[in-house]
Amino acid sequence: MYSRLWLDETIDNNNAVVTNNGFDADSVLLKNAVKELTTINAVSGLNISLVKCDREDLGKEGFEIEKNGDVYTVKANNENAVLFGTFRFINMIRLNKSFDAPVKEVPVSPLRMLNHWDNMDNSIERGYSGESFLFKDNDIVIDDRTVYYARVLASAGYNGVVINNVNVKQAACDLINERFIDKVNKLSELFSSYGIKMFMSLNYASPIDDPEVSSADPLDEKVIKWWEKKMAYIYSKVPTFGGFLVKADSEGRPGPFTYDRTQAEGANMLARAIKPYGGIIIWRCFVYNCRQDWRDLKTDRARAAYDYFNTLDGDFEDNVIIQIKNGPVDFQVREPVSPLFGAMPHTNEMMEFQIAQEYTGQQRHVCFLIPWFKEVLSFDIHAKDAKSDDTTVLGVVTGKTYGNALAGICAVTNTGNDYNWTGHDLAAANLYGLGRLAFEPSLSSEEIAREWIVLTYGNNEKVIDNVTKILMMSWPAYEKYNAPLGIGWMVHPEDHYGPDPDGYEYSVWGTYHKADHFAIGVERNSTGTGYSTQYNEPLKSMYEKPETTPDELKLFFHRLPYTYVLKSGKTVIQHIYDTHYEGAEDVKKMSALWQDLKGLVPDDAFERVTKRFEHQVEHSERWRDVINSYFYRKTLIPDEKGRPLY
Amino acid sequence: MYSRLWLDETIDNNNAVVTNNGFDADSVLLKNAVKELTTINAVSGLNISLVKCDREDLGKEGFEIEKNGDVYTVKANNENAVLFGTFRFINMIRLNKSFDAPVKEVPVSPLRMLNHWDNMDNSIERGYSGESFLFKDNDIVIDDRTVYYARVLASAGYNGVVINNVNVKQAACDLINERFIDKVNKLSELFSSYGIKMFMSLNYASPIDDPEVSSADPLDEKVIKWWEKKMAYIYSKVPTFGGFLVKADSEGRPGPFTYDRTQAEGANMLARAIKPYGGIIIWRCFVYNCRQDWRDLKTDRARAAYDYFNTLDGDFEDNVIIQIKNGPVDFQVREPVSPLFGAMPHTNEMMEFQIAQEYTGQQRHVCFLIPWFKEVLSFDIHAKDAKSDDTTVLGVVTGKTYGNALAGICAVTNTGNDYNWTGHDLAAANLYGLGRLAFEPSLSSEEIAREWIVLTYGNNEKVIDNVTKILMMSWPAYEKYNAPLGIGWMVHPEDHYGPDPDGYEYSVWGTYHKADHFAIGVERNSTGTGYSTQYNEPLKSMYEKPETTPDELKLFFHRLPYTYVLKSGKTVIQHIYDTHYEGAEDVKKMSALWQDLKGLVPDDAFERVTKRFEHQVEHSERWRDVINSYFYRKTLIPDEKGRPLY
Repeated sequence: MYSRLWLDETIDNNNAVVTNNGFDADSVLLKNAVKELTTINAVSGLNISLVKCDREDLGKEGFEIEKNGDVYTVKANNENAVLFGTFRFINMIRLNKSFDAPVKEVPVSPLRMLNHWDNMDNSIERGYSGESFLFKDNDIVIDDRTVYYARVLASAGYNGVVINNVNVKQAACDLINERFIDKVNKLSELFSSYGIKMFMSLNYASPIDDPEVSSADPLDEKVIKWWEKKMAYIYSKVPTFGGFLVKADSEGRPGPFTYDRTQAEGANMLARAIKPYGGIIIWRCFVYNCRQDWRDLKTDRARAAYDYFNTLDGDFEDNVIIQIKNGPVDFQVREPVSPLFGAMPHTNEMMEFQIAQEYTGQQRHVCFLIPWFKEVLSFDIHAKDAKSDDTTVLGVVTGKTYGNALAGICAVTNTGNDYNWTGHDLAAANLYGLGRLAFEPSLSSEEIAREWIVLTYGNNEKVIDNVTKILMMSWPAYEKYNAPLGIGWMVHPEDHYGPDPDGYEYSVWGTYHKADHFAIGVERNSTGTGYSTQYNEPLKSMYEKPETTPDELKLFFHRLPYTYVLKSGKTVIQHIYDTHYEGAEDVKKMSALWQDLKGLVPDDAFERVTKRFEHQVEHSERWRDVINSYFYRKTLIPDEKGRPLY
Repeated sequence: MYSRLWLDETIDNNNAVVTNNGFDADSVLLKNAVKELTTINAVSGLNISLVKCDREDLGKEGFEIEKNGDVYTVKANNENAVLFGTFRFINMIRLNKSFDAPVKEVPVSPLRMLNHWDNMDNSIERGYSGESFLFKDNDIVIDDRTVYYARVLASAGYNGVVINNVNVKQAACDLINERFIDKVNKLSELFSSYGIKMFMSLNYASPIDDPEVSSADPLDEKVIKWWEKKMAYIYSKVPTFGGFLVKADSEGRPGPFTYDRTQAEGANMLARAIKPYGGIIIWRCFVYNCRQDWRDLKTDRARAAYDYFNTLDGDFEDNVIIQIKNGPVDFQVREPVSPLFGAMPHTNEMMEFQIAQEYTGQQRHVCFLIPWFKEVLSFDIHAKDAKSDDTTVLGVVTGKTYGNALAGICAVTNTGNDYNWTGHDLAAANLYGLGRLAFEPSLSSEEIAREWIVLTYGNNEKVIDNVTKILMMSWPAYEKYNAPLGIGWMVHPEDHYGPDPDGYEYSVWGTYHKADHFAIGVERNSTGTGYSTQYNEPLKSMYEKPETTPDELKLFFHRLPYTYVLKSGKTVIQHIYDTHYEGAEDVKKMSALWQDLKGLVPDDAFERVTKRFEHQVEHSERWRDVINSYFYRKTLIPDEKGRPLY
């Protein structure tokens, strides 16, 4: 039915002794904690004491684990936190962690969420691991796999999930109506029982279909009442419900702009309606003109999120979070950090990553994204008017910089109903890793990788070494053989898979490189589209000039001749040739590292990953040859090393 | 339900007097002729005598029409021919043709066919005018529309139709089995009653699924017996059946190559099995490697049909016709004529055109293809070892050059269940025109256009003038704003619609232009892929050198620098800029000519065509700007006239 992912085997009765000291014994959260401790093989026979405490330093979700003699103690302030502590304790045992000193863990990011882009017909938008396991035939599915999935999320440290696609259509519009509301409640209760708040995506235009309202204008009294009534209804039926994720005014979705209202007016109307129930509204900032004329040389899609949102700082209700993609465009293998993270001191902000590998190999290529996410989070965005010393992206999205209670990190998930959950077995490292990273961002990528490897494949040093090497090589390799130097978008339109250097060049999507015989790129400094001026100093000055712009983003920010010399000492064109040859070589190396593990990892996993590597070797060579030949044909500048160009 | 196309209105009883002199009064063909003459409005009250004669000069399908006093006489040797004569007579009356002298018409092309690429699920491969009207929900549809369609075909001069897609899959495999055979017979009888032979496409691999055979090897005795039995069965159930069209060893379809047999061995096995019943096998020559590596610089898809077939001349049974696409690649707006037409003196050949506008605007652009087809047919291919003076393509495909009894002209049809049958109202001119052209190739394109216009819109001179201008401008305009100078394939992959200059450049399809900074094209002369050497002299020498290759095919045959000066005196690059601006301007002119007809053509037709022109204006500008900018970026050679390039 499905693989165990990184969770340990369960057995009927593992003879563990679990004592409850002060928690509500009737709480499903506590029951689930006890169930884990008494059925997980790895903690067989151990003596575990769950202790309710009242410690400010542990907060709502923190816990402390210690060992006294033969007794392990998991302390927490409430049942939710002790469940998280339990899952962590089990992993620590399995990871052979030391308990010589008490281990205190408090999640750094208040919200740690996954966004499903699952549709109710069973399909998944940008899904690369089968069909949805949450929906089938326009109905909600609740079965063993759902329970298992909730355990998976809790085990990795998540505390929230959005179950349906942000593009809410057809049956999904009824998730807030009588048709599905009882099943929605069941699903929400299930997730809740593992400490996961369930959210849904919402169709902003819903009240239009009510003939009594026929509008979605957020300032229209009838619309306001409609949503107030709707929220009251939803919470009467689904008391554990978390709130809504909203994609409005984007890629054909209706929104407040339809009525000449601001994004804040749109979000606040919903936020006020849901506030009485403790719900929150997560408002996506993915707003741009997706019907651009490629002949229009002035509009710059990269500017859009900042332009639409930065002036609204302070206008949002305090139960609104704006959800901002990590970069200004759309989940490319390399983008600068969105300048919005430094621009809105009075607004709750959430970071949106994508572990669904839409542009990073679609789970057919291995691409461990945690190193990239760490770069983004640790980036000093020089957040303006910071209340703390921490002006990094991490500071902003964990609430530290501005002292917000609401903040968070989320990712578009990479899961589906494939046997291995994530299409590529190694892609599960991203699922595990993002949860861990949001919980404890100070972990290194290697530490996270190692945890996942040991939990998944056991404690063989060669497996740990080789898989760590593969994972750590994978994102840099993908970047090398993809579009160069931050330019992005050289992919096949629509399916976003495989190289197509001019694929988006004459399209409506606003993502152009304008490569000609001499030069490539769109100038985005103050003399160009002005995108670089959206950053705070000193970033603004840094991105103004090619000399001070980091190599990996050179072509994102600047139009440069192919003969421009990078900091590396190479010309742009030679850099392209070299990195593309290197990237494809790296794939062969990764593949060889995997081949060395035959017999050391389960045979079925070995075969599945071997097949994926066979494809990745061929496909990375395709990337190499198409990109290199594209530039060679355009420039006629030969490769210094004389390698084949076609 | 559907428009009348170019057919006249029928009324209950038009008071015409029809006398039968010598034909079998029980013949459905004769009955249908009489029915036309007594119900068509245009021949109301006329006195018509149908006279059976025995004249060698009229052959199987010819007729002679004359007028003596008030009596019109249609003479023919048989019921089939007198039906054709009747349809022609009706059109002549409607066209106000003179009967001062007897009008004798004998079809020049023995076979005049349409190929449907209709699937049984109702879809049409490369269909641009709705869904199939022959099939629905995996069943055959026979209704009023079917009858009307048979009349349409007879009226335009066709005598054959292939009802199903050459890619035979799923339910269509059962067209030769009990599941559908009775309905197949009904449909065949219906077409037959209008003089149209019905053919089907066949799945060459059929006997593989019979566990007693499990093979499709044409030399395997069990396979041979299987088909003999199958043909006996089919003809016992469908006595009017014409035969089969076969796509084998092409684009994933199985064929004789699977068993290391030649195409002739494959075709002959079927031909021998069907011969006892007078059936024929039409064998498509669209055989090529569709998994080419774009990095392979030696293979040339253009060579494939000739390479696979020319050595088989004389090997085919005399009831086999090989069906050859007009050009060596695939229905581009401009290709040279396939050299196979000059290479096989002992083989029956059929010309395959495509009026489904797959690469010529998909019936959203107006593109009257008859001028192009006339160029192809009148081209002197210098057919080798000709038995007559006529060494043109027309001579070959009408049987004149080599004296074959079997030969013909066909086209992939542009019909569907749209109200207007052909998506674009003006595309019906291709449906009418191809039939007329096959019947009487000496007609000029303007004559054919005029006939269609008068039959469709009546006798208004302004309508005739303007629509003739539009039709005659349309193919040249499309060529101007499309891929330049015969290079082809700068279209969006898969849907084949809209410009994408590199769309096929790095693909498996074998259609590359290899444009770089200096030059474009694949050299196809004797120093290149050798394609040009497939032609007979003097064509071989003509295509050997750029100087003697006609401008419009320069880039099909040669790799040339953008600065190469054409016979026109323009450089390649300036030619590209100029023609693309001209082509888009031509569309505006055509649109204006149509706008002038408001009130002169039916309002609904006016509105439909106006909408299509609105799109064509915008889309031709897109073609212009994408193609021009693509070459400008690559070359950085400015437009001499300083027009916008992006």
